[in-house]
Amino acid sequence: MISAAIVGGTGYTGIELIRLLSAHPKVSIDLLTSRSEAGTRADEIFPSLRGISDLVFSDLGDETLYALQKCDVVFFATPHGVAMKQAAALTQAGVKVIDLAADFRLQSLADFEHWYQQTHSCPELLKTAVYGLPELNRDKLAEAFIVGNPGCYPTTAILGLKPIIEMQNKQAVRLIESRIVIDAKSGVSGAGRQASLALNYAETTDNFKAYGIGGHRHLPEIEQGIEQLLVSQFSQQVRFLPHLVPMIRGMFSSIHMALTEAGAGIDWQQEFEDSYAGEAFIDVLPHGVYPDTRSVRASNRLRIAIHQDNERGELTVLVVQDNLVKGAAGQAVQNMNVMFAFDETLGLNAAPIVP
Amino acid sequence: MISAAIVGGTGYTGIELIRLLSAHPKVSIDLLTSRSEAGTRADEIFPSLRGISDLVFSDLGDETLYALQKCDVVFFATPHGVAMKQAAALTQAGVKVIDLAADFRLQSLADFEHWYQQTHSCPELLKTAVYGLPELNRDKLAEAFIVGNPGCYPTTAILGLKPIIEMQNKQAVRLIESRIVIDAKSGVSGAGRQASLALNYAETTDNFKAYGIGGHRHLPEIEQGIEQLLVSQFSQQVRFLPHLVPMIRGMFSSIHMALTEAGAGIDWQQEFEDSYAGEAFIDVLPHGVYPDTRSVRASNRLRIAIHQDNERGELTVLVVQDNLVKGAAGQAVQNMNVMFAFDETLGLNAAPIVP
Amino acid sequence: MISAAIVGGTGYTGIELIRLLSAHPKVSIDLLTSRSEAGTRADEIFPSLRGISDLVFSDLGDETLYALQKCDVVFFATPHGVAMKQAAALTQAGVKVIDLAADFRLQSLADFEHWYQQTHSCPELLKTAVYGLPELNRDKLAEAFIVGNPGCYPTTAILGLKPIIEMQNKQAVRLIESRIVIDAKSGVSGAGRQASLALNYAETTDNFKAYGIGGHRHLPEIEQGIEQLLVSQFSQQVRFLPHLVPMIRGMFSSIHMALTEAGAGIDWQQEFEDSYAGEAFIDVLPHGVYPDTRSVRASNRLRIAIHQDNERGELTVLVVQDNLVKGAAGQAVQNMNVMFAFDETLGLNAAPIVP
Amino acid sequence: MISAAIVGGTGYTGIELIRLLSAHPKVSIDLLTSRSEAGTRADEIFPSLRGISDLVFSDLGDETLYALQKCDVVFFATPHGVAMKQAAALTQAGVKVIDLAADFRLQSLADFEHWYQQTHSCPELLKTAVYGLPELNRDKLAEAFIVGNPGCYPTTAILGLKPIIEMQNKQAVRLIESRIVIDAKSGVSGAGRQASLALNYAETTDNFKAYGIGGHRHLPEIEQGIEQLLVSQFSQQVRFLPHLVPMIRGMFSSIHMALTEAGAGIDWQQEFEDSYAGEAFIDVLPHGVYPDTRSVRASNRLRIAIHQDNERGELTVLVVQDNLVKGAAGQAVQNMNVMFAFDETLGLNAAPIVP
Repeated sequence: MISAAIVGGTGYTGIELIRLLSAHPKVSIDLLTSRSEAGTRADEIFPSLRGISDLVFSDLGDETLYALQKCDVVFFATPHGVAMKQAAALTQAGVKVIDLAADFRLQSLADFEHWYQQTHSCPELLKTAVYGLPELNRDKLAEAFIVGNPGCYPTTAILGLKPIIEMQNKQAVRLIESRIVIDAKSGVSGAGRQASLALNYAETTDNFKAYGIGGHRHLPEIEQGIEQLLVSQFSQQVRFLPHLVPMIRGMFSSIHMALTEAGAGIDWQQEFEDSYAGEAFIDVLPHGVYPDTRSVRASNRLRIAIHQDNERGELTVLVVQDNLVKGAAGQAVQNMNVMFAFDETLGLNAAPIVP
Repeated sequence: MISAAIVGGTGYTGIELIRLLSAHPKVSIDLLTSRSEAGTRADEIFPSLRGISDLVFSDLGDETLYALQKCDVVFFATPHGVAMKQAAALTQAGVKVIDLAADFRLQSLADFEHWYQQTHSCPELLKTAVYGLPELNRDKLAEAFIVGNPGCYPTTAILGLKPIIEMQNKQAVRLIESRIVIDAKSGVSGAGRQASLALNYAETTDNFKAYGIGGHRHLPEIEQGIEQLLVSQFSQQVRFLPHLVPMIRGMFSSIHMALTEAGAGIDWQQEFEDSYAGEAFIDVLPHGVYPDTRSVRASNRLRIAIHQDNERGELTVLVVQDNLVKGAAGQAVQNMNVMFAFDETLGLNAAPIVP
Repeated sequence: MISAAIVGGTGYTGIELIRLLSAHPKVSIDLLTSRSEAGTRADEIFPSLRGISDLVFSDLGDETLYALQKCDVVFFATPHGVAMKQAAALTQAGVKVIDLAADFRLQSLADFEHWYQQTHSCPELLKTAVYGLPELNRDKLAEAFIVGNPGCYPTTAILGLKPIIEMQNKQAVRLIESRIVIDAKSGVSGAGRQASLALNYAETTDNFKAYGIGGHRHLPEIEQGIEQLLVSQFSQQVRFLPHLVPMIRGMFSSIHMALTEAGAGIDWQQEFEDSYAGEAFIDVLPHGVYPDTRSVRASNRLRIAIHQDNERGELTVLVVQDNLVKGAAGQAVQNMNVMFAFDETLGLNAAPIVP
Repeated sequence: MISAAIVGGTGYTGIELIRLLSAHPKVSIDLLTSRSEAGTRADEIFPSLRGISDLVFSDLGDETLYALQKCDVVFFATPHGVAMKQAAALTQAGVKVIDLAADFRLQSLADFEHWYQQTHSCPELLKTAVYGLPELNRDKLAEAFIVGNPGCYPTTAILGLKPIIEMQNKQAVRLIESRIVIDAKSGVSGAGRQASLALNYAETTDNFKAYGIGGHRHLPEIEQGIEQLLVSQFSQQVRFLPHLVPMIRGMFSSIHMALTEAGAGIDWQQEFEDSYAGEAFIDVLPHGVYPDTRSVRASNRLRIAIHQDNERGELTVLVVQDNLVKGAAGQAVQNMNVMFAFDETLGLNAAPIVP
């Protein structure tokens, strides 16, 4: 059993971590913190946890900071900018850090500071951080001390493009044209657990809208994924437009590409199946089966469907995941499994909830 | 054309008043106020009003207060406690006041102060206020200067009980046993347009709960309706339990009663039909037709279904309305129509929106 | 490991059984049947099961019937009237039967035939069937060969009334008046997985309605629970009115009672806590905490809140459960655990899904 | 007053026509037909119409066919293939026909027969039919006898592209690159009023999916709009991908284009505002205001937002409408107004319903 702490456990990724780790056979949650709810039992805030967890929120004071250093792993389910302030002390104490916010996602300091409007407090540590997408970075994660858990949209985008960019690199010829349109849709829980007029039920339900139209923080992360993680040999321009769907959980990314003649020569269904053959959490759907978000509800699986139309020169990749699981807390647990050399699926095998 | 003002136009009852009055053939909205949004066009806050209204919110400063006194009628779509501070000046200037909050609903000062936790600022005016339920108070409303627009739940409760209490009074014998259970359900818009964690989409949707379990402000208003408006000769004890339904609009009150032997002798379906025969906005559904809330969506109609089971000695009255229309803004317009001797249905004839 | 079969696996209780049993450490699902989908993989119908189950639906032909007799337990997730035709052959072969439909719920043949409009095909077996509510019938279940898994509403009603009726029996004096109002609300999945205009999304969402107003099949089951299971010494008349809530899962029963003077002398909060102290799946919420349905989503827990108002002589019991879990498939698995002397919570410990 | 008939009034476009025409000051609905509901009052099927309409459904027998020929206008709210069988007799009798299905949308017989899998029964009449998009075809509509009311998606696509294609034609130079991605999202009412497992509430809510991935009937209609109605001088290839949103009404089309250098030289915000300056139902939102579907709920308005990013060479046009109003019944009434030389906005001025 390893000893885990969750810093900032009152948000949706926080409760999802509690839910997943409480059922994990090799993890004990020994510490849970919250500035606003210090002293309160977690199951008072979330009655769904009654009988599941008897944890009490601690404040993030000196005593807690000291206790964190005794843990094996600390998850930060906090706003952007919190983890980077604690990471140095923790890693020096040999504690592994998994940040579910953005502090360790973007390798470019300039990008981080531009998009998140704050100075990075530990740029040297940032260089050692590993981007927590096991399907790309499994080896590095096994050695990592700091992991930047990916954003939800970038997870779908990068995994939806990986077999294509890799094949393009391998063949050293353009298979898709330069412009990629990622028209993405998220459930409302992605906006976090907060009091907000815009998220009020009566404002949000029976309604659909786009947001982040002029630029969303996940765009540079997607671009980094294509350029640095997948090391695309060809420039790819991404138009990323997120939308808000009146549903609690779920993310659906429709990725539109134009095939070159060379690209049309490839059987992309087969290529995706081969590329992800060994991945426990990536499910390439059979030809003609199309995904819906509920098919991954409350699960760490991400499902991909391919539609290739050579006559029109189109390739469409549809990617679904639960934004709170594979898009956040589940992926964090998967990263932890890799970091501690556990079976990667440990604690993550539960079936999706349908209906 | 009469000149109307809406004080506090940024809530859901405010926008509903703008929607209804903008289409009313005898009303011009000349003034719209909001502390928080002074200087802003209404259609910036509510883009649905683009092309419908070019009103700009005014602050509630001296100039506005003076302008209000030039209007024929002022609607208060404000929190409790605002209208009572302005009502004296307005009525002295000959302006009619319709308060959609609770300042002029309860005749008992003690009840008001107990349930709303504030001192009433114009108790003498309260005595002249008329409870704005046209189906009960039509004559008084025609002469009224101050109208307390009913709460949404009391509208369903009082109209659902009226034919029964009246018949019981008429026959001077108990027709229903003393205990009445009103198990009521409301859409989320009833909680108002506000930033609130409890009303966050991800907290509210796919979820159902009761609230106000230990006592809700609408209970004394229902009791006042039975005892004072309907002048019940028999004591009736009410258990009122409201619930929150994951839907935007709509209110459904299930009223459970036990029939006495005398009560079982009455054909309640017929009795309700007769009692409401002349009412434009009360629809007693035929025997065996049961209501759903969408059948009144965005409409001022209130529909009632009767289920009488003499074998079990049960009488169930089901009442539906749109909480923002007959339960708030529509009823206010209906009251206005009566107060200004317009056709009572003017501006209120639009069909419900289905689906 | 025991060998289990699910007859009729294409409905919502069917897929829920597959989900729960696939994760059960002592059960192997060896057979899955469906008339309509014979030959199809379950994960083609329910893509959420991809990677979870590779079962294929069998037809209910002779070969399958023979194979069923080799199982240790057979779950019937079929329409009413199917299990009673197979039960004799199975029990003769030593197979335990758990019927999630109504064939073995009502002990009274007359009631069964009146409410379900069919003749019972094995009245002698019915006498040996045990009503599958472990919190009442644990001992009998340990010996049972045929179990009638309770209806969803009766589960909430009987468990919400049990401590009261038992205390009333014990004290041999009326604690609540004779008339009980159960105003119950269910999510839409309770209506089953079917093509139906009334259940079409555009008909059902943003809408609320009552149904079964003149009489619902679960009423005689609730009455049987009070009279025969709880052996109430006093007659209790129940008004049961179910409603449809626009949510997928969840059931909320508001039970309204009037306290007698003797009843007001009891601390019902304490009484419920004591009564259910040892029950793993019954959670009596602390005083002042009120339940919502999502707090039990996808979980076998049932939560109860008590509101006692001696001044008004009222006792309100609020009960929530997931209609597909404690209200159906989860309770069936709990029954199986008892029948096979497994730990009663095996396979049923997963935390509710929130948000 | 003109005399109108609605053939096939039991679907969602049928009830929407009844709702809109019942409030139209110059129209009397004199006939309403339905094969399945002949003899039934409309307000029995749709209780929301109680007090609004006392129409009774007629069968489509000889007597009714004769009566239809006495009307001024007949709306077909029927499945594809019904209107074309009645159109000849009606137009010969001088009756104007508005078909809300697809019989008169596609000018190409081959396209019609390919996509709708039936033979067209009156190809000669098809040539005289006018595509009912008033913003493009106002003059032709004034003379039309047969109008093919546009599909919902094509309405958003064609109106979202019109100012661009027209400007491109005018300048005779490519302003956008050839490939256009239309990623569109519709509420569930677009699938019609039908019993369907796929549309069951528990299957559809809290869920999001794409459909028509390999080809949707609205694609050739969009292409016809670009090529023939807008007479694009440049070839434009369209990738059209529709999605299903868990909401009742509303359609949101995200149109993604790449700007050429010439295209980047144009101020598209200004261009759209100018292009639609005189249009009562087209609202070009101010720069930086983005649409949501509820802002047009139950209204005939269509709102457009422009996002131009010259640095990235991107132009995004977002279009929202109510799929049942501007996307169907409202547009049909607008067409009727033009055909009968009424004020184009008559009966269509109601404000959207928010919240």
